[in-house]
Parts: sequence; structure tokens; C-alpha cells
Amino acid sequence: MKKAIYPGTFDPITLGHIDIIKRSAITFENLIIGVSVDNNKKNLFTLDERVEMIMDSISDIDNVEVKTFKGLLMDFAEKENAIAVIRGLRVLSDFENEFKMALMNRSLNDKISTFFLMPHEKFTHISSSLVKEVSSHGGNVSQYVSPLVYEKLLKK
Amino acid sequence: MKKAIYPGTFDPITLGHIDIIKRSAITFENLIIGVSVDNNKKNLFTLDERVEMIMDSISDIDNVEVKTFKGLLMDFAEKENAIAVIRGLRVLSDFENEFKMALMNRSLNDKISTFFLMPHEKFTHISSSLVKEVSSHGGNVSQYVSPLVYEKLLKK
Amino acid sequence: MKKAIYPGTFDPITLGHIDIIKRSAITFENLIIGVSVDNNKKNLFTLDERVEMIMDSISDIDNVEVKTFKGLLMDFAEKENAIAVIRGLRVLSDFENEFKMALMNRSLNDKISTFFLMPHEKFTHISSSLVKEVSSHGGNVSQYVSPLVYEKLLKK
Amino acid sequence: MKKAIYPGTFDPITLGHIDIIKRSAITFENLIIGVSVDNNKKNLFTLDERVEMIMDSISDIDNVEVKTFKGLLMDFAEKENAIAVIRGLRVLSDFENEFKMALMNRSLNDKISTFFLMPHEKFTHISSSLVKEVSSHGGNVSQYVSPLVYEKLLKK
Amino acid sequence: MKKAIYPGTFDPITLGHIDIIKRSAITFENLIIGVSVDNNKKNLFTLDERVEMIMDSISDIDNVEVKTFKGLLMDFAEKENAIAVIRGLRVLSDFENEFKMALMNRSLNDKISTFFLMPHEKFTHISSSLVKEVSSHGGNVSQYVSPLVYEKLLKK
Amino acid sequence: MKKAIYPGTFDPITLGHIDIIKRSAITFENLIIGVSVDNNKKNLFTLDERVEMIMDSISDIDNVEVKTFKGLLMDFAEKENAIAVIRGLRVLSDFENEFKMALMNRSLNDKISTFFLMPHEKFTHISSSLVKEVSSHGGNVSQYVSPLVYEKLLKK
Repeated sequence: MKKAIYPGTFDPITLGHIDIIKRSAITFENLIIGVSVDNNKKNLFTLDERVEMIMDSISDIDNVEVKTFKGLLMDFAEKENAIAVIRGLRVLSDFENEFKMALMNRSLNDKISTFFLMPHEKFTHISSSLVKEVSSHGGNVSQYVSPLVYEKLLKK
Repeated sequence: MKKAIYPGTFDPITLGHIDIIKRSAITFENLIIGVSVDNNKKNLFTLDERVEMIMDSISDIDNVEVKTFKGLLMDFAEKENAIAVIRGLRVLSDFENEFKMALMNRSLNDKISTFFLMPHEKFTHISSSLVKEVSSHGGNVSQYVSPLVYEKLLKK
Repeated sequence: MKKAIYPGTFDPITLGHIDIIKRSAITFENLIIGVSVDNNKKNLFTLDERVEMIMDSISDIDNVEVKTFKGLLMDFAEKENAIAVIRGLRVLSDFENEFKMALMNRSLNDKISTFFLMPHEKFTHISSSLVKEVSSHGGNVSQYVSPLVYEKLLKK
Repeated sequence: MKKAIYPGTFDPITLGHIDIIKRSAITFENLIIGVSVDNNKKNLFTLDERVEMIMDSISDIDNVEVKTFKGLLMDFAEKENAIAVIRGLRVLSDFENEFKMALMNRSLNDKISTFFLMPHEKFTHISSSLVKEVSSHGGNVSQYVSPLVYEKLLKK
Repeated sequence: MKKAIYPGTFDPITLGHIDIIKRSAITFENLIIGVSVDNNKKNLFTLDERVEMIMDSISDIDNVEVKTFKGLLMDFAEKENAIAVIRGLRVLSDFENEFKMALMNRSLNDKISTFFLMPHEKFTHISSSLVKEVSSHGGNVSQYVSPLVYEKLLKK
Repeated sequence: MKKAIYPGTFDPITLGHIDIIKRSAITFENLIIGVSVDNNKKNLFTLDERVEMIMDSISDIDNVEVKTFKGLLMDFAEKENAIAVIRGLRVLSDFENEFKMALMNRSLNDKISTFFLMPHEKFTHISSSLVKEVSSHGGNVSQYVSPLVYEKLLKK
């Protein structure tokens, strides 16, 4: 079974993420959304909240699961028998970091490939950070997140 | 059957291309190397030579075929019932062109996703053009191409 | 009267160009679309056709005129008493060229400023070249150009 | 009256900023320098100091005012009836952030356009951050800031 | 005597750094590795540890010395009578920062030139930060650092 | 004797090139300006004219020679016993090409290092091509080239 991991912090999940999830779920038989536990970014949402919002967004896709992971992505991917890691590429600065991580990850485990997907142009310019920043100042981000995420952002 | 297209001019195929082909062949059940017939670049090798060099390079991979195509990539991909297009991303200038093509191709056919792969760092800086240029001046490019391609480059 | 020039080849005009024209026409009292006569690119459309397609696209905007020009943009802008030049910025490779041209133009005439506008994200990835290329292979580009331009592209 | 906002932190204002202010003041009938109150960057200068240094720099330009604002730039711009936002573009990393913000701001308020200006090449490489960093180590930055700002930097 | 400075934090030194040191030591009669004392990054290793690891790595190169410095690089370089500063350029984001710093440094001291070197492609994607991050999660980075550094990373 | 090559087409030499030559001549005991004979670009000036303009520009620098070369730069550099190749880096698109060439050249001859220099910010945005283009339209480029080059450009 050809399995892929789509790792991230998802703080919170955006429609850009969901676009990539839907496309990956068509390509791979099994897709695991890997929610990172131990990253250093200060998150707005707890791990439970982040997982809940993802679950809510993917309820209509059969072959996608949500799991949390600690430590090296490549260790997680190997344990899950994944053959691929999925990453979104929106802008150039993504490219640089992803380029470095993909080469490092390949040197850590040459069996697993990193595949990049570009989200729909509607989502080229958004990120979890920008959505949080705009929302915290009262800007309307309802076109970039699911209704549940939007509601939770308003509460914060 | 999950099928992908890896399109290009392959004038000539390099070890960077082969790296991407091998990784894609693990991920997809069927991979078609689509050799573009009608691009405007002046090619060094004829279509037959280009196909021959590809065939030689992939003889040990079961689930890969070589086909030539004319016209729009998306039309070719659709006709082949492919669900994905594979593209290599080496450097930033690739990113820009690929970004534009991927979004355009998506707007032409939203059912087919473009997946990007980065080749091994040994091949980050090479391209068919650079290999041809260096070889035409007598530089040794044997570490970047297969023995058959190397031999054919020496003859040109 | 605050006048600006929006120079280009417009071979052909796209909805991305029109987006920038509409926004510039709000900011400046008078906007001149300067169609370059002597650039070296081989154009698909004649100067007359290019002007006709622009005229058709801007018929509903009062303060916009179309003029053709030869030679240095800065000479044309000066003759027209323009205080600004407008340029679209879509992607990074634009940035580089525009950066060089804007600094050179400033050194040629320090009185005229270059202002950059980003088109709507729907048009980030398109250009006259890409529209022509896709259309020449039979791809449908009707969402990126006006009906008149689309019709003319089909005829070519 | 065609009014524009030039927003920023101005911690402190540099000659690069002033270059952009002077050029914008020629183009727009009214220019408001919007000093951001609630950004998260730790500023070296207080809001009052920042405003004072800007006021000192623009005393000879008639149609420029300084105002402070909290929250979303687009809300501030709308309240001021501005039709445009001005941003400086020096280097590529600017481009990326500005690209994202400009598209987000457009989606928040489609009536207001973001215009980008490149400062004189003398100022391409400087920023408030670099000026502060160099100055804090005793480097002479007098060619990049006004005399008042230079004096205040020496005191810090 | 033509002397150059290779400045950095070296937290810790990687094989990419050593590659650049070796090449610079061939070009310049004297190379000083300048270890920055007062940068704001939180370092994993103390200054003494960082110097020790560098010393260990360069024991077989005659014309290289290690010195620590505080404050402006240009002041240090001037005091040492260096005619050049060496910097590594791996990826694009390096380019931007280096571009700004090189132009600023030139304006601080026009007598000293900044020379850039690209490390071997094996090291294009690595940096002290990435090495630390991967190592902290248990990833094997022994191919990117010297045996002593590897051992010290394992202890942290 | 530490010798370096500064290769290029120099069609024509600009003040940006001269800036880099002067700085390299301080660092290396011997600097050879290598004028490429067989590149594919259509040059405006003949090889003799290009050499003449370079000679005129460097008459006051003792340790610089002009030589022409055909074929691979690395072969020329090796024949000349150079230990280094000098390249200018102005903008990002330079970076990409230089990155690829530097890694390729290193794989062709690991003994010779490529060093990059950034020209003064006054010359960041200029190139031989831009100078020729602007001059051909009657623009004044006297601040970017030497008097002899300016005169020759006017004649063309």
C-alpha cells in the first residue's frame, strides 16, 4: 500500500492545506496527516484543537488519517512505512527551506521521497501565520479557512 | 491504476532525470516518460536518439514506458488517464517557470496534479543544457550522464 | 494633471494587464498605455492589432489613452509630461528585470518614478507569452483574455 | 483628493524611507505616513521618538502628514479614505512578504491598491534593522539617516 | 602579507565551513577564522567549545589562525590588517543577507573586499542550525561534521 | 604566484567590471582578464575592440593582463596556473547561473576556486547588455562606462 505523510503544525489548518490534502489523497492510497508535537513555534491552538480542526476538515475523505508525531519526520515516516512525504510550495521562501529539508531528509533516509505540490492560486499568498495575524486584528479570513476554524479564530 | 507522466525534452537524458524517474517509479504504479516533439528549442539530438537514450537508461525499471507527445501536456496526460505530472525542481529559476506552468495546467485540467521532486544534491546544478555546453568544449561530463549518452555526446 | 504611463508590448493584452490598467486609472488623473513599437521580440500580433485589442478592452474607462512609442521609455514619458511609470510585478523574475530597469530609468530621468502593482492572484501566473503558447497548442485561455483577444488568438 | 498611506514602523526612519516619501508626495495629493503602534517587533525607539524623527525629516514637504495607527492597515486606510498604500521594495525577501501582504490586503479591501517603489540604489541595501545593528556596534551610519536620527542613535 | 578573515558563529563548525576554510587558505597567505562573541543568537556551544572544535578541524592547515572578536566585523578586519573577508554562499537566502552586509561593510571600509565562495554541493543544504536541529531529534549528522563535533553534539 | 582569472565577454567593459578588476588586483598577485572568444552571444564589438577598451581601462593597474581564450574556462585557467576564478554577483539571477557554473567548474577541476565579488551599489543594476540597449536608444550611459567606451558606443 502506497502511503504518504503530510507533516505540519497546522496552527490552524487552512484551505490551502486542505487543497493539498485532497490532491494527495487522490494520488496515494493512504495519506497520514502528521501533526508535529515538539516544534518550537509558539502555537495559538493546542495540539488537541489542531487535530480537531483537521479531523473536521477531512471527514469526507476516506483514505486520510491524522496522527501526531514527535522528533524526526523521517523516523515517523519510516515507522509508518510511508514511501513519500508531501509538502506544499507556495512561495520562494518556502522553496529555500524545503530544498534544504528535502536534501537533509533524503540523506537521513534515501527510501522516502519528498513530493511538492503547489496549492491553488487562491491560496498562494496565505499561511497559518498570516491568517492568525490578520484575524487577531479583526480582519475577515473566512475565505481562507473552514467554518469551524473561522469560529475558533474569532474566539481566540 | 495510478499513472503519472514525466514530461520533458531529454536532450539528452541526464543522471538527474534518471534519479527522478527511479523515485517516481516507486511512487506510481505506472510512469510514462513523455518526450516532447514540438518544442521550439533547437535540440542537439533527434527525437529517435533521445528516445533511444532514455530506453537504454530505464531498461531495468519495469513500470516505466517512453512515449512521445505533441501539443499540450495536459491533453496528453488526459488521454493517458494520468492523475499526476512529475517535474524536477533543481534551482530557483526552475521554481518560477514551474510555478507558472503548474497553475496554468491546473486551470486547464483540475483533475491532474503536478508533483515536484528535487534530484539528489549531486545533480542540483546540472541540466541537459549545461551538460551539452560543457561537453561541446571538451569538458568531461561522464559523471552526469549514462555511458551511452556520454558516448553519443562525444560523437557530436 | 498627474499623468502616468503604462508601457508594454501587449502582444496581446491580458486580463492581468487590464486589472493593472483599471487600478492605475483610479490613482492617476490620466493614464497613457504606451505600446512599444521597436522592441526586438517577435510579436504575434501587428502593432495595429495590439492597439485595437487594447482599445476594445478600455472602452469603458474615461481617463485612459493608447499611444505608441519608439525608443527610450523615459524620453516618451518626458515628452508626455508623465510623473510616473506603471509596471506590473507578478513573479520573482519580473522583480529582477524591473529592479534593473527602474534604477536605470531613474538615473536617466530622476523626475519620473516607477510604481509597481501586483495583479490579482488569478493572474499571477499568466503572461502574454504563456497565453500565446497555450493557445497555440489548442488550450483554452478564455479566462485570461477578453473575448476579442480570445477570438483573435483562435484565428492565429 | 487622491490620498495614499505609507505605513511602517520607522524604527528609525532612514534616508531610504525619505526617498520614497518624497517621490510619493509628488504623485499623490496627500500622503499619510502611518506609524504602526501595535507591531510585535521590539522597537528601539518609542512611538513618540519615531514620530518626532519622521516629523523632523518631512518638515519641508507640504502634503505629508504623520499619523499613528493600531490594528489592520486596511481598516486605517479605509478610515482615511486613502486609495493607495505605498510600500518600498528593496530586495527579494521584501518582494515575498510584500507579495503576500498585498494580495491579502486586496482581498480585505479591493478598493485600495498597493503601489511599490524602489528607493535609490544608494539605499537598496539598508533597512532600519541594519542601521540599528551597525550603529549599536559603533559603525558610522550617518550617510543613511538624517542628522537628528544619527544623533539619537548615538545616544542609545 | 595578504590576509583574509572568515567570520562566523561556528555553532558548531561544519564540513561546509571547513571546505571554505581549506579553499581560502590556498588563496590567501594568512587566514583568520573570526569567531563572533557578541551575536544575539542563542548558541548551543560556549565560545570555548566552538573555538576548540575549530582548532581541532584545522590542525593540519598551517596558515590559519582562530581569533574571537566583538563588535563590528570591519573594525576587527581593519585591526588585523586584512584585505578581504570571506563568506560562504549556499542558497538564495544567504545571498540576500550577504548582499546587504557586503554593501554595508564596503561603505564602512572601502579598502576591504568581501569574497564569496560556494561550498561543495554535498554541503549546499546544510548549516549549523540544521545540523543542530536534526541532531537534537536523534538524526545522524556524522557526514556533515567532524568526528569531534559529532561526539559533542551527541553529548548535548 | 597567486594568479586569478576574471573571465567574461566584456561587450563592452563597464565601470562595474572595472570595480571588480581593481578589487581583485589588490587581492591577487596577478590577475588575467580572460576575454571569451567563442561564446554564442552576438557581440556588438569585435574581439579587438573589446580588448582595446579593456586595455584602456586598466592601463594604470600593474598586475593585470588581458588574454583571450577559447573553449572551457577551466582549461584556460589550468593552462595559466590560476588558483582562482573571479566572478561578479550583482543580482539574484546572476546567483543562479553562477551557482551552477561554479559547481560544474569545481567538478571539472577541484584545484581552482571560484570567488564572487559584488560591485559597488552604483553598479548593481547595470550590465553590458543594459548599457548597450539604453545607448542604442539614445540614452546617456556615460556614468556607467569609461570615456573611450562611451565614445565607441555613440559611434555604433
